[in-house]
Amino acid sequence: MRIIRKIFSKSRSLEDGIFFDAIQPILGFSPVTLEFYKKAFTHRSSNRLDLKGNPINYERLEFLGDAMLSSVIAAYLFTEAPLGDEGYLTKMRSKIVSREHLNELGKDLNLIQFIESKVPLHHFGENIHGNIFESLVGAIYLDRGYEYCEKFIQKRVIVPYVDIARLEGKVISYKSLVIEWCQKEKKVFHYDIFEDNAIDGQRLFGVKLSIDDKVIAKARATSKKKAEEKASQRAYFAFQEKIDRKQL
Amino acid sequence: MRIIRKIFSKSRSLEDGIFFDAIQPILGFSPVTLEFYKKAFTHRSSNRLDLKGNPINYERLEFLGDAMLSSVIAAYLFTEAPLGDEGYLTKMRSKIVSREHLNELGKDLNLIQFIESKVPLHHFGENIHGNIFESLVGAIYLDRGYEYCEKFIQKRVIVPYVDIARLEGKVISYKSLVIEWCQKEKKVFHYDIFEDNAIDGQRLFGVKLSIDDKVIAKARATSKKKAEEKASQRAYFAFQEKIDRKQL
Repeated sequence: MRIIRKIFSKSRSLEDGIFFDAIQPILGFSPVTLEFYKKAFTHRSSNRLDLKGNPINYERLEFLGDAMLSSVIAAYLFTEAPLGDEGYLTKMRSKIVSREHLNELGKDLNLIQFIESKVPLHHFGENIHGNIFESLVGAIYLDRGYEYCEKFIQKRVIVPYVDIARLEGKVISYKSLVIEWCQKEKKVFHYDIFEDNAIDGQRLFGVKLSIDDKVIAKARATSKKKAEEKASQRAYFAFQEKIDRKQL
Repeated sequence: MRIIRKIFSKSRSLEDGIFFDAIQPILGFSPVTLEFYKKAFTHRSSNRLDLKGNPINYERLEFLGDAMLSSVIAAYLFTEAPLGDEGYLTKMRSKIVSREHLNELGKDLNLIQFIESKVPLHHFGENIHGNIFESLVGAIYLDRGYEYCEKFIQKRVIVPYVDIARLEGKVISYKSLVIEWCQKEKKVFHYDIFEDNAIDGQRLFGVKLSIDDKVIAKARATSKKKAEEKASQRAYFAFQEKIDRKQL
């Protein structure tokens, strides 16, 4: 009986197992100490306290995650924009880590599904999404260190979202780039909605872009326009050599 | 003859050797790519260009070093001040990485000795010291990665300078703490100047603090008052258990 108990206590609780399975694909690696990630999603309204009576919530982790994000993005820009001076690098970084952008990142990963709060979800403003994205980065730092933060930010921020040309304002709309290219090359294109959901009152559209009847890219976003733009951006990166801006 | 040339080209130039020997003790480890460190001390007035005609100076490295400093200090405060909320952590960090504080750090390491510039040293303002401290941190990141930045900042910023009680304004003067303690314990103390230099027009005072005729701490600074305070702080840390603030 004792042995069984010992084995059981070593295994995860059912609740922890569910959380682990849900967060692992978002992280792209296995978390070691789940507590850090739980804290990253604990809102102050839950009034949780640790053994010493200190509050447990994600606010301190936000501070930590914000710092890690800033330094990872700084190092990325330093390498990727070798001709940009200090002012340029600072401006580009603030665009990438803007409140609006972080909110979009958190929303796309649907992090709000994990929140522990006494406040109903629809009472939160937009910033909750960005805040828990930052606190998640803070939890990754505590759990696995700086290198894992770098990998996570590379995978979840830089690869899917950071496009220096766009940030510089050189590309205003990827959709118009794609359309112009299709017209020039006499190709037939379609933007079709394949999904139209609402989760917790949050509308989500899925759009696919087909060129000459072949699906080129798919994307989900909170508006049809945003989803079309995101799908166009993905198509643009897939076809970057063909859809060269200079040729348009 | 060819062999000799090959060996010779592999060894460091005399100039590089001198620079290596001077920077190594400041870093506390051996630099791998000296070029990063040379760039960290190259002022824009030197008008140096790389092979592609792009300017070589420390300004971009400042941006990188500033980001690394912020995240290392954030992680330090997160651990050291477990009860501080986000606002507290943000405030403490800005005190540690304040312009004034960074200038002091750069000055204490006498980094200006390495500067390559067409401007005479005495034409620079105070901020040059902090700027090249930041660019040095950026060079460390490029040369050896985040962990070496952490170690360097631990050794050169946190251990000698960061004292949370002082930053919180709880301790105004270490000199007065030391004096009060000596008077209470009936100990004889002396602050003596052992050095009074001027390098490039920059006055530098060395002060030693003796208690009961034993030298307890030494410090150098740009004024007698600052050097006394710094020596007192060192003595305070050495005697922390004895000179307990609560007993005063």
